[in-house]
Amino acid sequence: MTAGVAALADQLARGETTSAALTETFLARIAERDKSINSFITVTGELARNAAAESDRRRAAKMARGPLDGVPIALKDNIDLAGVPTTAGIEARRKRVSATDAPVTARLKAAGAVILGKLNMHEGAHGATTANEAYGFCHNPDRRGFTPGGSSGGSGAAVAAGLCAAALGTDTLGSIRIPSSFCGIAGLKPTRGLVSARGVVPLAWSLDHVGPMAPKAADLSLMLEVIAGRDSADSYSAHTPAPINFALEGLSSLKGLRLGRVAIDGTVDPDVASGYEAALALLTRLGAEIVAADLDGFDHAQLRSKALLVIEADLALIHAEDLEKSPAGFTQIFRDGIEFGVKQSAPKLAAAYEAIRAVGPIAARLFASVDALVTPTTPVPAFSFEQPMPKTITAFTAFANYAGAPAVSVPMGFTKDRLPMGLQVTGRPFADMTALRIAAAYEQAAGWDMRPAD
Amino acid sequence: MTAGVAALADQLARGETTSAALTETFLARIAERDKSINSFITVTGELARNAAAESDRRRAAKMARGPLDGVPIALKDNIDLAGVPTTAGIEARRKRVSATDAPVTARLKAAGAVILGKLNMHEGAHGATTANEAYGFCHNPDRRGFTPGGSSGGSGAAVAAGLCAAALGTDTLGSIRIPSSFCGIAGLKPTRGLVSARGVVPLAWSLDHVGPMAPKAADLSLMLEVIAGRDSADSYSAHTPAPINFALEGLSSLKGLRLGRVAIDGTVDPDVASGYEAALALLTRLGAEIVAADLDGFDHAQLRSKALLVIEADLALIHAEDLEKSPAGFTQIFRDGIEFGVKQSAPKLAAAYEAIRAVGPIAARLFASVDALVTPTTPVPAFSFEQPMPKTITAFTAFANYAGAPAVSVPMGFTKDRLPMGLQVTGRPFADMTALRIAAAYEQAAGWDMRPAD
Repeated sequence: MTAGVAALADQLARGETTSAALTETFLARIAERDKSINSFITVTGELARNAAAESDRRRAAKMARGPLDGVPIALKDNIDLAGVPTTAGIEARRKRVSATDAPVTARLKAAGAVILGKLNMHEGAHGATTANEAYGFCHNPDRRGFTPGGSSGGSGAAVAAGLCAAALGTDTLGSIRIPSSFCGIAGLKPTRGLVSARGVVPLAWSLDHVGPMAPKAADLSLMLEVIAGRDSADSYSAHTPAPINFALEGLSSLKGLRLGRVAIDGTVDPDVASGYEAALALLTRLGAEIVAADLDGFDHAQLRSKALLVIEADLALIHAEDLEKSPAGFTQIFRDGIEFGVKQSAPKLAAAYEAIRAVGPIAARLFASVDALVTPTTPVPAFSFEQPMPKTITAFTAFANYAGAPAVSVPMGFTKDRLPMGLQVTGRPFADMTALRIAAAYEQAAGWDMRPAD
Repeated sequence: MTAGVAALADQLARGETTSAALTETFLARIAERDKSINSFITVTGELARNAAAESDRRRAAKMARGPLDGVPIALKDNIDLAGVPTTAGIEARRKRVSATDAPVTARLKAAGAVILGKLNMHEGAHGATTANEAYGFCHNPDRRGFTPGGSSGGSGAAVAAGLCAAALGTDTLGSIRIPSSFCGIAGLKPTRGLVSARGVVPLAWSLDHVGPMAPKAADLSLMLEVIAGRDSADSYSAHTPAPINFALEGLSSLKGLRLGRVAIDGTVDPDVASGYEAALALLTRLGAEIVAADLDGFDHAQLRSKALLVIEADLALIHAEDLEKSPAGFTQIFRDGIEFGVKQSAPKLAAAYEAIRAVGPIAARLFASVDALVTPTTPVPAFSFEQPMPKTITAFTAFANYAGAPAVSVPMGFTKDRLPMGLQVTGRPFADMTALRIAAAYEQAAGWDMRPAD
């Protein structure tokens, strides 16, 4: 498995390497391997080398800022990095250079992280394959011609291919966790409001989240600690409670924890179904009590159409100027989606909002009886670009977006066909660390080696 | 001033009266005085007498349940009381008997409160005059022919006229605080989610709040302690944090508190403007530091049109069946409002939601620099039913609904024409008790005697 934030931070702390050396290694890998993967839209080599040199000077002066200092990471291309375009995977935004850093970018820079560049994504984050026509399809590092998932497909692929130690993604219905599952890495959608979503090209204001993607749960924890925190200028982050304890203690026993499981139906791939049963058995051996989750009233298919309306209506506003000025800068399918939203009535959207809000009480009831919900991350593994995206792709992930709850995906082994699978742990709002601890305990006990080390 | 919850609870505790005696007194007053005020839509005399008798038996057995046990109160007629119609002030709902109690009603009953009946309101809560064509205009107890405010006009008038010790109202843009101001009583819109809004006919799901109205701030505190609490089946209440401390300690000094004030423009009645300056001077004498509130970016007029769209879109859904089956059961103006909402596009509503969400960061910035915001409750006092409702009526109140913040109105004396005025204290979300303590300190120091005692 590729070295992540925690491993590289250790190497830097022990003086076994320098940020400059790591940065050159990653840049060289990008130059070599990304030709066939296409996970980067922009590589910021000069910025990265300068940041690495500064980090090494700080470290030499015993003034390193923390675990992330000098660690090379990358950003999904809908997150602002000053001086570099924020394309959001949209042709019309190809030259849209951001003047400022998003608050999450500024937090990473302040922690000393080295930004390697900006990552490919599904057009406007509106889709889950990263079959991007403007910037090129991003391929699954495990199988060329297959999707890495999306919309944060570049983030998943780059981390899995060892092109960065971690990446930021964004997640509206599953866009961090789906590529994490498809690429065999770990990814966290934090509690709504825990991480600022300002300076990020939105998909749907009320459902968008920014979060980390990395090889291991421990890496996610180190990333979360840096990017989390109240942003008084962000609608959802402005009232976030005081900081939480981000220490990811080794949780070898899950004794005393009740985990909710879901029933598996015919829409779930048989390998995913048996992988899930094996994961539940392992969680039981770790001491957890597994019970049937009470999700009565949660109807994924019905809510999906409501969420899509919320997305289309927001997109019409978010890209209004570009759609007006350069309609050819969007794909037909993207424009069609927005056209659909424009034609709907206000009460229809009001009904969609109310249906999504009603998931809050379902989550409250669920978390009154279990400490976390454990599901497959996706019902199917990665698929060929020639296949259509299944409508069930967000069946397990979207619940956390509706509920504002934290959800982490970690590798759950491989299908018989050697495609990665993911296990998702969804926690109570603001219990991000509980979800991460459960995922880390599973990860450690399962010991999946998703990919040969570099 | 009419005796409120605190005063009557003391009398009951000392054995100076019984719940049965109080209930008969209030029922007799209703029979006599409400002929000219018209604050009640339904008087539940038998239910009240039975509840009073039970309360007196409990008290005789030393098993009284707390301060509210045996105290006669009343409910706005959009709040469910089992076995009684919930008209919401709408003709089409005249016979809509509720099978169950709303959670707030159940909480009041469980605390031993005696429910005297259901109170008049603006049709569907969609308006602020309580000039109700179906159930009759509700008149201001201080001046017949003048509005008591609204939409909780019956609640304001009934409390002011001594027809109940306290009432519940609902508040979407100011509907608790406007009638509190117009009738010379105290009223609280709690933090969003602190009090369940289930079992209440909605006006706009994302802006509705239930709260108490009573003679004094201390009464509001006693009521809030009973009605507040997580309701896991309510979208906003499901994730409410642990209970807060409801004790309203005598806060005679406001030393150390920074209060934000607003600039007064020409839309504010001159008597309200001078009353506000006098109130600020008194707050200063009590030790508070008064500073100019930073509300940059808050545009009441612009947000009002956004909020009205949210309301119209929700109303179209909430009353869809009745509008279809009995359109004549609504006034033309109510139907016109809904018709407007139905004609708007989904993106227009999405923009309204986003504009309202953007008030969150404005509030966060404000409350980073002050402990509370102090404003007049309404820019004008009560007006004749022959006058149109000024568009600025919610200019000071709606901010708290957008921000989800608690806001309390207490009497601020009279205009030269002897009409009551109100002072509003808006606090940080979940700092309901801070807002109430500031209001109580002002109330005590100002000593306004709004009305002769009964």
